[in-house]
Amino acid sequence: MDIDPAWLPPAAFRAVGGRRTLVRGAGPLVDTVRGEVAAACERFGGRMVPEEARADLVLELTGDTGDEGFACVRADGTTTVTASGGPGLLYGLFHVVRLGEDAFRGERAREEHRPAVALRMLDHWDNVAVHPVMGQVERGYAGGSLFWSDGRARGDLERVRAYGRLLAACGINAVAVNNVNVHETEARLLTDRIGEVADIAGALRPYGIRTHLSVTFAAPVVLGGLPTADPLDERVRAWWAGATARVYEAIGDFGGFVVKADSEGRPGPFAYGRTHADGANLLAAALAPHGGTVHWRAFVYDHRQDWRDRTTDRARAAYDHFVPLDGEFAANAVLQVKHGPMDFQVREPVSPLIGAMPRTRLAVEVQATQEYTGQQRHVCWLGPMWSEALRFRPDGEVSAGRLADGLVAVSNVGDDPFWTGHPLAQANLYTFGRLAWDPAADPRAVLGEWIALTRPEAPARLEAGLRAVLDGSWRTYEKYTAPLGVGFMVQPGHHYGPSVDGYEYSPWGTYHFADRDGVGVDRSAATGTGYASQYAKPWSELYESPDTCPDDLLLFFHHVPYGHVLHSGKTVIQHIYDTHFEGVEEAEEARRVWAGLTDLVDPAQHARVADRYEEQVRCAREWRDQVNSYFLRKSGVPDERGRTIH
Amino acid sequence: MDIDPAWLPPAAFRAVGGRRTLVRGAGPLVDTVRGEVAAACERFGGRMVPEEARADLVLELTGDTGDEGFACVRADGTTTVTASGGPGLLYGLFHVVRLGEDAFRGERAREEHRPAVALRMLDHWDNVAVHPVMGQVERGYAGGSLFWSDGRARGDLERVRAYGRLLAACGINAVAVNNVNVHETEARLLTDRIGEVADIAGALRPYGIRTHLSVTFAAPVVLGGLPTADPLDERVRAWWAGATARVYEAIGDFGGFVVKADSEGRPGPFAYGRTHADGANLLAAALAPHGGTVHWRAFVYDHRQDWRDRTTDRARAAYDHFVPLDGEFAANAVLQVKHGPMDFQVREPVSPLIGAMPRTRLAVEVQATQEYTGQQRHVCWLGPMWSEALRFRPDGEVSAGRLADGLVAVSNVGDDPFWTGHPLAQANLYTFGRLAWDPAADPRAVLGEWIALTRPEAPARLEAGLRAVLDGSWRTYEKYTAPLGVGFMVQPGHHYGPSVDGYEYSPWGTYHFADRDGVGVDRSAATGTGYASQYAKPWSELYESPDTCPDDLLLFFHHVPYGHVLHSGKTVIQHIYDTHFEGVEEAEEARRVWAGLTDLVDPAQHARVADRYEEQVRCAREWRDQVNSYFLRKSGVPDERGRTIH
Repeated sequence: MDIDPAWLPPAAFRAVGGRRTLVRGAGPLVDTVRGEVAAACERFGGRMVPEEARADLVLELTGDTGDEGFACVRADGTTTVTASGGPGLLYGLFHVVRLGEDAFRGERAREEHRPAVALRMLDHWDNVAVHPVMGQVERGYAGGSLFWSDGRARGDLERVRAYGRLLAACGINAVAVNNVNVHETEARLLTDRIGEVADIAGALRPYGIRTHLSVTFAAPVVLGGLPTADPLDERVRAWWAGATARVYEAIGDFGGFVVKADSEGRPGPFAYGRTHADGANLLAAALAPHGGTVHWRAFVYDHRQDWRDRTTDRARAAYDHFVPLDGEFAANAVLQVKHGPMDFQVREPVSPLIGAMPRTRLAVEVQATQEYTGQQRHVCWLGPMWSEALRFRPDGEVSAGRLADGLVAVSNVGDDPFWTGHPLAQANLYTFGRLAWDPAADPRAVLGEWIALTRPEAPARLEAGLRAVLDGSWRTYEKYTAPLGVGFMVQPGHHYGPSVDGYEYSPWGTYHFADRDGVGVDRSAATGTGYASQYAKPWSELYESPDTCPDDLLLFFHHVPYGHVLHSGKTVIQHIYDTHFEGVEEAEEARRVWAGLTDLVDPAQHARVADRYEEQVRCAREWRDQVNSYFLRKSGVPDERGRTIH
Repeated sequence: MDIDPAWLPPAAFRAVGGRRTLVRGAGPLVDTVRGEVAAACERFGGRMVPEEARADLVLELTGDTGDEGFACVRADGTTTVTASGGPGLLYGLFHVVRLGEDAFRGERAREEHRPAVALRMLDHWDNVAVHPVMGQVERGYAGGSLFWSDGRARGDLERVRAYGRLLAACGINAVAVNNVNVHETEARLLTDRIGEVADIAGALRPYGIRTHLSVTFAAPVVLGGLPTADPLDERVRAWWAGATARVYEAIGDFGGFVVKADSEGRPGPFAYGRTHADGANLLAAALAPHGGTVHWRAFVYDHRQDWRDRTTDRARAAYDHFVPLDGEFAANAVLQVKHGPMDFQVREPVSPLIGAMPRTRLAVEVQATQEYTGQQRHVCWLGPMWSEALRFRPDGEVSAGRLADGLVAVSNVGDDPFWTGHPLAQANLYTFGRLAWDPAADPRAVLGEWIALTRPEAPARLEAGLRAVLDGSWRTYEKYTAPLGVGFMVQPGHHYGPSVDGYEYSPWGTYHFADRDGVGVDRSAATGTGYASQYAKPWSELYESPDTCPDDLLLFFHHVPYGHVLHSGKTVIQHIYDTHFEGVEEAEEARRVWAGLTDLVDPAQHARVADRYEEQVRCAREWRDQVNSYFLRKSGVPDERGRTIH
């Protein structure tokens, strides 16, 4: 089967490819631009014109837009894109592609575009050697790894190149090529196997993408043979300096390291009585001479918690660990924070760490791979969720202030012919890139872009159909899964499908505390774990009381009786019943809409999605019935509408 | 580390080895007897004497005891064991070993011993190739396989020989060497890899043990290349006849086949519209000319049940499937029935299939490997449980009538130096063998035998200690796990540790239906699934009503309110709380007793058991707290004694 062109089908280049175009400038990324235009012209009858010739489109390296920015203007029948750097020119070209014929109509006032966030990254949780439990790609739902196969880097990097091109077209500029859980084989990518990483970096470089590597904090011990990995030990510092220098010999524009330390069993600085700032700064110092960055993950918590202990609260952990270290991190260290305080649940508040460390560079991490949102067997377009998180302002104002220095998504891509397992999950990858470029963008407008690019000749019925199945799909998924922000309720281990008590008596800090009277976690300052007070006002006050807490997050912050009346006017128990029935109905309706598009979609793609809708509807019913039955059995409160609950 | 001698330490042979012994007769098993006596004499100063010489012990092949029986008498200072077959003589020798010095004191009236059950078998769920999910030994808790390693039969069969010797000493006469779930590699043991099975058979043969093979019903397709495995197809019948004849060319005394068909995804006759009798008789016909037997497992049920469906009852399945076929099975087909209707839970009623098929040969299967009883990390001596099942009489009378033609245990042995992972789990293997020989034996007397053989010089304090930790260990395990016969409540997949709802919303047919008002499965004829009526009177009547149903099985047969008063005088909810607190206290007490035996037990063995007691106590507390918390949260009924429940 051919590889799906995703949002860069040949027809997307029709408008550009039919023109006379001048590309002016030199450098590898300008060559990429030139190659793109030439290919489009060959297909659609336009041509590359020489200096001084009349051109419909000029792409030139000039001006002062910053390396990644570009300006676009149309006057006198010529559309001109200028950029001061190769990446900006490439982004400018893709901007014109997105505009299509509109780019060549009438006049267009000069617009300047720059990314709001400098670091726009995808983390691949790809293992080189197949892990006995986690497989080739940890939490991967799109086949094997794009990068690794049979225990080594793929020899054929054509797909990696195609991937880089897709990422450039949505604005991504960094990729980490291996799992943050760095196992034995993968540790060696840093040293004797760096050549394999260099090959991948070479395939991504023409698209303005820098390659990053996940490394183990224990590398000086497991690779260097040192007796310690203590970040303050001179031998350790020397080892990292040397190892990093050798990385840069192989990859001159290497982006840096990603580190998961002292988390879920990974080694880290705690073993040596050092802080996470000590740990991060060790690597930052090794990278600084070369212009690299260390991404230090803030996902640190006690994963061996006693469920009997109601005072420990995993949601508090990142804030408690890291806020005291604000100001201690090096300038080229970035603290990478999950968008919510738990773990990529379908509904969480925004992490209180965001905004609480003004003197620390932060990157916000989201999960494009749908670990907790249907594993690419369910349609769940995450644009609205990410947008809500990215528009959140810690002080309650929608300010122009920076939310983060970086945005990172765990990639949802593998070697699947549709890239993402579920063809419609491509929309998540595209949306992430565009929101990383502009977190204030309207996600629905981004979805429109994706539809127009992916299906340039789509009739209105297809566009309407895609919007119908995607627009509300996150809300639909939320409706039939864990209610009101309570989270989890998934089957342990693989995290697919319902198990209401699956993580209730576990060591993972993931509880709902449902009993015959009520449900939810009291995280108030007054009577609970105090998590609510980690926020600045107004959020701390809003979340503190069930009267002001948003319905969507009620059970994240409060343990309430089943009869508690939501702002919606419904009781909690009736809300649970209603949303679960609605969620299934919405999934069934989406399946019906998709079935009606059969004449408008490539048969293989239509069949793949149709098959997955069967599974989605089956699984949604399972969620509905298990959640409703669980709460009916526990609460004894019948459904007001008398529907079947088991 | 040396291999533990288990119940045949050298010192167990002191009494025999110090005597003048005459062995009279010829044949391979007589040679085994001669070798045993000679080795004992060499160690303890006795000697083998020639014909006509004065002897303290005579072992001779004569008489009419049946192939496996023997007689023992002592007169005029000579102890004489006679047997008409080699196996009987070997069993007679081990009888004298068990008697020790008592065998040589005073006079002993002639006693004849014959096994009550002809087929006394161990099934090994051993895979040849390591299975990606189930590993080397499915449900194995004692390391790797005794027989298979690195994808083939072990070259060194010394341990297999030692295993055969241990089995002969407790009366086992058959072993099936591979998993009833026959995967791709294992299927070929039947054909081109039969030589590996022959090597194992050769190592077991000197101890009177016949080797059996688990086969896949689809063998004619997967091995023979036929388009069908239809049992009535002549090509299929011819293929089985030929394949079986070749097995007997390799292994002249081959025991026969074990088959799991149409169960948990295994292939079977249902695919061809044939009955299980058709299927079993196909293999029986192939085996009959050679004197072999097919063991056809009755473990057939719908493992894709909808938990919402309360009319389907897995407990009914074996009876419903097989009773209509009574009389249709060939004479050399044995229907192998699990002792309970579900799956080796800590407490189940005896299967109603037992006694309901008078014209069918039955074997009863128990599980020595502790899948649901602590996985050899917990001490759980199953003698009393098996004895209860084996003494059960379908008509309610303790009659002399036959319960079964065979007794089979799933082996708990692997390549662990202590054989069984937990050293004290050896007692289960020994007890099974002795109960298979004599199902009416007092299990506590058997335990006494095991202690005396295993530790021939044990002081009274050690014997008392072992009895203290073993005697009541099954009851203790039951107390802290699933209450009152309700079953399961284990973590899905691996089945270790508690998860009260782990199998509640699953397709496996394993539910407790707990809600805020009560718990248990209504299997009455009047209002439930009707399972209770599968029994003959008096059991059907006894089980039908919660008033007469034994407390131990109450929740297996009835859904009752938490306030239901047991025959013990306690409410169900208080019984749950009390037993769970008691179970943990008993486990803690056993740990304490074991710790006090440190000076009397080999240090490596003491340490192994002590370590496992730490885990047992930890896990027992987890069971207590999860079960009690689950039911407190659901019922709202506080513990009468105000103990901590979370």
